[in-house]
Amino acid sequence: MSHNSFGHLFRITTFGESHGPAIGCVVDGCPPRIPLTEADIQAELDRRRPGQSRFTTQRREPDTVRIVSGVFTDERTGKQVTTGTPIGLVIENVDQRSKDYGEIKDRYRPGHADFTYDVKYGIRDYRGGGRASARETAMRVAAGAIARKVVPGLVVRGALVQIGPHKIDRGNWDWEEVGRNPFFCPDAKAAAFFADYLDGIRKNGSSIGAVIEIVAEGVPAGLGAPVYGKLDADLAAALMSINAVKGVEIGEGFEAAALTGEENADEMRLGNDGKPLFLSNHAGGILGGISTGQPVVARFAVKPTSSILNPRLSVDRYGHEADVLTKGRHDPCVGIRAVPVGEAMVACVMADHYLRHRGQVGQSSSWPFPA
Amino acid sequence: MSHNSFGHLFRITTFGESHGPAIGCVVDGCPPRIPLTEADIQAELDRRRPGQSRFTTQRREPDTVRIVSGVFTDERTGKQVTTGTPIGLVIENVDQRSKDYGEIKDRYRPGHADFTYDVKYGIRDYRGGGRASARETAMRVAAGAIARKVVPGLVVRGALVQIGPHKIDRGNWDWEEVGRNPFFCPDAKAAAFFADYLDGIRKNGSSIGAVIEIVAEGVPAGLGAPVYGKLDADLAAALMSINAVKGVEIGEGFEAAALTGEENADEMRLGNDGKPLFLSNHAGGILGGISTGQPVVARFAVKPTSSILNPRLSVDRYGHEADVLTKGRHDPCVGIRAVPVGEAMVACVMADHYLRHRGQVGQSSSWPFPA
Amino acid sequence: MSHNSFGHLFRITTFGESHGPAIGCVVDGCPPRIPLTEADIQAELDRRRPGQSRFTTQRREPDTVRIVSGVFTDERTGKQVTTGTPIGLVIENVDQRSKDYGEIKDRYRPGHADFTYDVKYGIRDYRGGGRASARETAMRVAAGAIARKVVPGLVVRGALVQIGPHKIDRGNWDWEEVGRNPFFCPDAKAAAFFADYLDGIRKNGSSIGAVIEIVAEGVPAGLGAPVYGKLDADLAAALMSINAVKGVEIGEGFEAAALTGEENADEMRLGNDGKPLFLSNHAGGILGGISTGQPVVARFAVKPTSSILNPRLSVDRYGHEADVLTKGRHDPCVGIRAVPVGEAMVACVMADHYLRHRGQVGQSSSWPFPA
Amino acid sequence: MSHNSFGHLFRITTFGESHGPAIGCVVDGCPPRIPLTEADIQAELDRRRPGQSRFTTQRREPDTVRIVSGVFTDERTGKQVTTGTPIGLVIENVDQRSKDYGEIKDRYRPGHADFTYDVKYGIRDYRGGGRASARETAMRVAAGAIARKVVPGLVVRGALVQIGPHKIDRGNWDWEEVGRNPFFCPDAKAAAFFADYLDGIRKNGSSIGAVIEIVAEGVPAGLGAPVYGKLDADLAAALMSINAVKGVEIGEGFEAAALTGEENADEMRLGNDGKPLFLSNHAGGILGGISTGQPVVARFAVKPTSSILNPRLSVDRYGHEADVLTKGRHDPCVGIRAVPVGEAMVACVMADHYLRHRGQVGQSSSWPFPA
Repeated sequence: MSHNSFGHLFRITTFGESHGPAIGCVVDGCPPRIPLTEADIQAELDRRRPGQSRFTTQRREPDTVRIVSGVFTDERTGKQVTTGTPIGLVIENVDQRSKDYGEIKDRYRPGHADFTYDVKYGIRDYRGGGRASARETAMRVAAGAIARKVVPGLVVRGALVQIGPHKIDRGNWDWEEVGRNPFFCPDAKAAAFFADYLDGIRKNGSSIGAVIEIVAEGVPAGLGAPVYGKLDADLAAALMSINAVKGVEIGEGFEAAALTGEENADEMRLGNDGKPLFLSNHAGGILGGISTGQPVVARFAVKPTSSILNPRLSVDRYGHEADVLTKGRHDPCVGIRAVPVGEAMVACVMADHYLRHRGQVGQSSSWPFPA
Repeated sequence: MSHNSFGHLFRITTFGESHGPAIGCVVDGCPPRIPLTEADIQAELDRRRPGQSRFTTQRREPDTVRIVSGVFTDERTGKQVTTGTPIGLVIENVDQRSKDYGEIKDRYRPGHADFTYDVKYGIRDYRGGGRASARETAMRVAAGAIARKVVPGLVVRGALVQIGPHKIDRGNWDWEEVGRNPFFCPDAKAAAFFADYLDGIRKNGSSIGAVIEIVAEGVPAGLGAPVYGKLDADLAAALMSINAVKGVEIGEGFEAAALTGEENADEMRLGNDGKPLFLSNHAGGILGGISTGQPVVARFAVKPTSSILNPRLSVDRYGHEADVLTKGRHDPCVGIRAVPVGEAMVACVMADHYLRHRGQVGQSSSWPFPA
Repeated sequence: MSHNSFGHLFRITTFGESHGPAIGCVVDGCPPRIPLTEADIQAELDRRRPGQSRFTTQRREPDTVRIVSGVFTDERTGKQVTTGTPIGLVIENVDQRSKDYGEIKDRYRPGHADFTYDVKYGIRDYRGGGRASARETAMRVAAGAIARKVVPGLVVRGALVQIGPHKIDRGNWDWEEVGRNPFFCPDAKAAAFFADYLDGIRKNGSSIGAVIEIVAEGVPAGLGAPVYGKLDADLAAALMSINAVKGVEIGEGFEAAALTGEENADEMRLGNDGKPLFLSNHAGGILGGISTGQPVVARFAVKPTSSILNPRLSVDRYGHEADVLTKGRHDPCVGIRAVPVGEAMVACVMADHYLRHRGQVGQSSSWPFPA
Repeated sequence: MSHNSFGHLFRITTFGESHGPAIGCVVDGCPPRIPLTEADIQAELDRRRPGQSRFTTQRREPDTVRIVSGVFTDERTGKQVTTGTPIGLVIENVDQRSKDYGEIKDRYRPGHADFTYDVKYGIRDYRGGGRASARETAMRVAAGAIARKVVPGLVVRGALVQIGPHKIDRGNWDWEEVGRNPFFCPDAKAAAFFADYLDGIRKNGSSIGAVIEIVAEGVPAGLGAPVYGKLDADLAAALMSINAVKGVEIGEGFEAAALTGEENADEMRLGNDGKPLFLSNHAGGILGGISTGQPVVARFAVKPTSSILNPRLSVDRYGHEADVLTKGRHDPCVGIRAVPVGEAMVACVMADHYLRHRGQVGQSSSWPFPA
């Protein structure tokens, strides 16, 4: 069962509400003897942390992570390493403003999970979205920092490729640029445009959607467990489980519908090293649910932040009609901070499938085969 | 673990290769005392069966299903019903042409899983795609026929909404039309166009992609298990696990990226019955991973059939370059037959979440709440 | 996967080492709207806490539990209740003596997991047994306190029925007595004997095994998921997973091997209430893996504490022979403190199966059936 | 979820009722390239098959297994091998006597699952015990035949060590003898006694219980997933899930309760090969839930066959009192045929843990460690 757990051999289980005492995560199944410190995790958390620019929420969440189990000092190297036992991670919540939630505690904010949690459970922690808050994604990023270390040679990077109707120019793609602007945008020119564009959105009290692309390089060929544990099926679940995500695609994605078989085929030749060389990557690195060895490319669409300053029609939990507007600190485009979250989820999927593959197959067969 | 199983409380496990002796499925966790006959399942299988028009493969697969366990006659009604024990389903493979596979048994057809299965497992049943064949989806459709009966009032319908770059006119949408044309297309005019269009594709020995939309009505509010077992996360995995699918979206999907918070909000009022009434359904029936009670709307993109008559560059398993072209009987647009498969997977997700919800919560709370 | 998780719909995941910063547990799938406070859990933890008599270890572990998520105040009742989201529990470790572990950090204590953890993982937290320490069972007891509340009417009680070769007199069984002596023993006379007997064991620096019996009353008929999720199979796993347990039995258990079919049959009549009445309970409340409605009776054997003051032959991790003796504070009979742990695990199994049954079947059929 | 599935990376799912059309099993996760034929499986099935002596049921079940998926011919060796895809196994039921079930179809046979299935599901296939029949164990034995091939060097053997109150003389233990008598008994003298003893039981229309011991040799050190996926916890679940089993123990088992820490300690020295050498095996090859490298020893108790010729008091499903006696063909001691079933379940646990261990850890660390 997977209420609040994700993965099988590399499994994460998160807990915690936005304004509760703490949030946390258990990472179970991590291989032993992997160097791991709180600083490793903190570095990733800092990339996601809000309040770093005017384009993300101004909440102050230092998000200081504490590793409470699963690591120990290796005497011979002096380094702290994983032990193979569950890694417990805890972040205390510190910016829980004792504000008045009177306006929204009984009303259902359109686009939020307020109504559905209430109908399902009959009770909900309404403070800051409770369990449905994107605050939970801090623990995904923390877990992802560990997952990244599990697959040797794995590099997972994400980039914002669209805000509103505005797509970046892929010809300008520069991974270095991603770290230089507050949008994780690989196109410097688009980033400049987005700054102005989002200022307008923000000043209107409005919000806007976005599309994020995640590229995983160094994924060995052979990962994936057909037919229901396909690598792409798990990626789809992983990315769709992120708050506000409404679509996921692999490789050409929805564009593939418009292609012919000739156009979409990824032809193969032998490379100079005698290894198979794909001449294109329409498949996004996955065929039949199994990785090809090419970069795995996934994209996901994030809807506009539901919390906006303009009032919307709604109802309350007692069966009355009521209008709702959201005060307070919010992201005009939640898609921005979804970039490191998407990376983390992709890393978790790769770690899980790497261990599953190693479990079933041991070592991949050496291609080419002797005749 | 979910190599070849899907779902938790309602779990399906399939087995079988395209040209092996038989394919089958175990449906575990189905509630007892649900009327079920082979005819119920056969009716769904017949919708997916190939060879029914010139637009699908001409293979002859009668796909006669046999229920070998999990049902018994209820003496008082004389009806055959489920017993709560695992339902075993078997279809014998009868059209296994003893043809010569010499040309493709060592060569990797671009776009197929030939290469990835070989690299992963070091051995593969190359006949007709083996385990990676869409033949496996017959068992999904069979399982889906059972799943449909689990959630009272559930109606799951699918429709083909795009072939190649050509989208249907949603203004022409007529569910009745879906059963009248060989494309599962709800727009009669588009269906007529698709017939000509696909004839051209077919005569060229080419293939083309498609987009399918699945609508589930009668989904009670409250289904979904946040935060990793979200209803939409499981739908994404279910649909992405279907052969040749490259993208999945819920509600507005990727279009949501271009919307503002105001545009995307589904406002609420009270209906004449005093119940909450959504004024729109951009969310596709899911908020925070939990069903709202509105229709659940999902779309998925299917890539063009990889088997085409025009030769493509490739390599073989012994490390030589080789060209590949596919002879024989194939679908010019595999997206067409994916419609009943998509319906089946959505039904399975709903059945699973219905039982999970009933397990955790018992009865949903009665909304509105007493003040 | 179940490295550090137990259960399905009611699932616990624990983390933490004996001498690490903290131990914790995530309880996922708990139904909403169940009253729950830290005091509810603390009461159970206090029953297990060491240092309460001279017969258990003298470590000081206040074991103060903190609920960090999954609960919220129900405004209408003012009570804190579960919300259906994961319940995070954390206990900070406070009695981590900065003692010298030099003697045992490289040596394998016979009967302990030192050698096996080292061989498996290549690294281990040797302080106090690390993850293999019985300290982990504090979180089982905490989770069990929640599980007890899930099944209406469930009462789970445990009793120590044997220490060393000495069995209690079952004719003296008095549940009230269990709380009056430091052994959880239902036979006052046996308890007096055990006090002397264990004093002798303790003064010799030795240790001794024990047998515990758990009785669950109020288990509704129909719980159990045949054939691999049988109620007794899950009970066996649950109890065998407790530290130092080497045997589990249900009802007559191993004695059943010596019985004839006539002797072992639990005959049935109709009770005065018209309901089925079993005339005996050799089966221990479970037939075919499903509860009968009678009390569920399980017993488990706990081996003697492996930490003893008398030196034993061993080897070290560098391949040298070395003797080991254990200094410090230890239980002469770890079986005693296993009583509340056994209760907790049985409660967790019942909660899980109750939710699973409610998921698959909804309401049990009403017996007798109309003719 | 595990209604009818067992295991994680090596997972078996069975289906089928005693008198339904067929029984079957899906083995998912089996590594590729393992030689496997129907004859391999048939050999194990034949050991379990009934009707081979007067001490087991006289039903004729040829139990001819068909592999319908998951295998393919390796061209280079000409051998049939596993492909890594799910292995489907089917046995058609052929000896379904069209007998009159009138007497038991509404009555609950004491000791059987009749009552509990009826109360749980409200419907049951009463013919021959339906799903609760030991017929299901044929598929366990079939799956076990595959599991045995997964762990290199693994040898799993079982023996009957007690019938009724009569234990074998362990000094006479001879594994060769197990195959020479109809009881799987390693003590020739005891076997002779059992023949007479069981004749008496059988002629009286009675039945008797038994104890079986399973020994797994060649289990590498390091298997086991603490703390809830311990090797012994999974063994306990596996064995307790077998029909009629009421107790499971590892190593000394319940006898450990009577031992002191000194007696129970398995001391270690270095062997002539420089590897750790245990001087005893009270632990039964498992410490802290992880294998030590010694033989894993498990025992389980089987209750007497519930079907006896002497009438017992009972009730029927319509709420009337009624007596029950069982006519027809039954085993006087079901424990006998449980021997190959127990072996199979132990083999399945070992295969699963072997793959899990290989997944998480890859290669075990090489002991001893460099200083």
